Amino acid sequence: MRRISSRDNSKIKNFIKLINNSKYRTREKMFVIEGRKMIREALECKNILLRLFIDESLVEDFQEEISLTDEDVDCCLLDKKLMNLLTDTEKTQGIAAVVQKPDYSFDSLLQNEELLVLLDRISDPGNLGTIIRTSWAFDVGGVLLTPGCVDPFSPKVVRSTMGGIFHMPVFENISLEDMGRLKKHGYNFTGTSMNTSQDYYSEELTGKKIIVIGNEARGISAEVRNVCQNFVKIPINYRVDSLNAAVACGIIIAEARKQKKGSSLS
Amino acid sequence: MRRISSRDNSKIKNFIKLINNSKYRTREKMFVIEGRKMIREALECKNILLRLFIDESLVEDFQEEISLTDEDVDCCLLDKKLMNLLTDTEKTQGIAAVVQKPDYSFDSLLQNEELLVLLDRISDPGNLGTIIRTSWAFDVGGVLLTPGCVDPFSPKVVRSTMGGIFHMPVFENISLEDMGRLKKHGYNFTGTSMNTSQDYYSEELTGKKIIVIGNEARGISAEVRNVCQNFVKIPINYRVDSLNAAVACGIIIAEARKQKKGSSLS
Repeated sequence: MRRISSRDNSKIKNFIKLINNSKYRTREKMFVIEGRKMIREALECKNILLRLFIDESLVEDFQEEISLTDEDVDCCLLDKKLMNLLTDTEKTQGIAAVVQKPDYSFDSLLQNEELLVLLDRISDPGNLGTIIRTSWAFDVGGVLLTPGCVDPFSPKVVRSTMGGIFHMPVFENISLEDMGRLKKHGYNFTGTSMNTSQDYYSEELTGKKIIVIGNEARGISAEVRNVCQNFVKIPINYRVDSLNAAVACGIIIAEARKQKKGSSLS
Repeated sequence: MRRISSRDNSKIKNFIKLINNSKYRTREKMFVIEGRKMIREALECKNILLRLFIDESLVEDFQEEISLTDEDVDCCLLDKKLMNLLTDTEKTQGIAAVVQKPDYSFDSLLQNEELLVLLDRISDPGNLGTIIRTSWAFDVGGVLLTPGCVDPFSPKVVRSTMGGIFHMPVFENISLEDMGRLKKHGYNFTGTSMNTSQDYYSEELTGKKIIVIGNEARGISAEVRNVCQNFVKIPINYRVDSLNAAVACGIIIAEARKQKKGSSLS
């Protein structure tokens, strides 16, 4: 383990750039995590943890995490002041890491028979993270993002996934062409809308289904709406504009899972 | 309309204190809101808007809001710099207000036959706001908070309710004694737990039901767990610790509403 004492150290600079710069994350195919829980989730995935930063005064506390890292992982010790530079939460737990972005195959997705979620221009990091977490909890096959979505590897999103970012396949920059390919492979696109009479629980949500959730303020874009073959609504008080996107998504995924369980029992 | 030009003006100081100080909000029975949507929601409730602050360069844009206020509402014009002091979002819309806290009767709640939500030590402002918004959308009768919850009138919570704070009765500082009174009046407390075999959709959720949601990290406290007569779980992947509290709450409320609709049709 090496000790880093200067904020000008290239590893510190690299980490801070990975916190703040989405393009840099994309180019380097890396992102950053912090806190014991996230490090533990990353350690469960093979070979994705690249570099570990630990508060030197807490080395004893993190013996187990250190012992679980591969030999070629670069372990760095920092003083509290430098450690605080690496975190944007108020209370750092004294552990942070650089990890490799997972690489999932879109082609294998086409062959599967799964529930998927397509998010169209979701802009709130907490919403995206929560949807990834919920999708993980309900064994969704993948979360697809249109180009206008917030970066799923930004620190705020990653934190809200509560580890889900390591387990839920996330596909970025899904184009209309990609949607066309999914359709050709038998996937059915079901959009959420307030302008339909079809309640979500009266719709068949099993099989090769893609639930489409739109932007928090503007809903699903016209192009993506054109892709949708069905629409469902969650019936709510007419005075309320909408549900929170993550809550709406959770309600529909939960219904789909309930239907799947029901159909496998019968 | 008066023009305020100094940050030392008592109305400015009062507003800033209402942003930052929960005890002050409680003592003054007031809270603050910002943005056109929130002001419009407040204007729909009688006599709760006390003071309006408007960016002087945008007075024309807010003519309708100004015309909707009662005569005795104190309308103040501010320059952009002062206006920015009153908001903690990055982009101010140029309108903010001081409003009166609503005052709901706990006794009338006892007489109703409604679905209620009890939140035990919910600490994340976004979660609390989203739960109030969801409860409004599904016509829940009231949201009850134990003493450890985040202040529902803090700016972050208020913003996340998307106007729901004006329409959903919220009861703070609900004690074990209050819970006892609810029970005596026929309310049934149903807690969420991962340690039960009872799926939420197999449970009868109509009538005088109180859904209990626990703290984000620690779940329902031992004392409140003792109050619960039933427990339900949302079946998820065993590797995932939990769902987000607002998503879990949304899934159960949506199921309760679906059951209610089903029972009223049959």
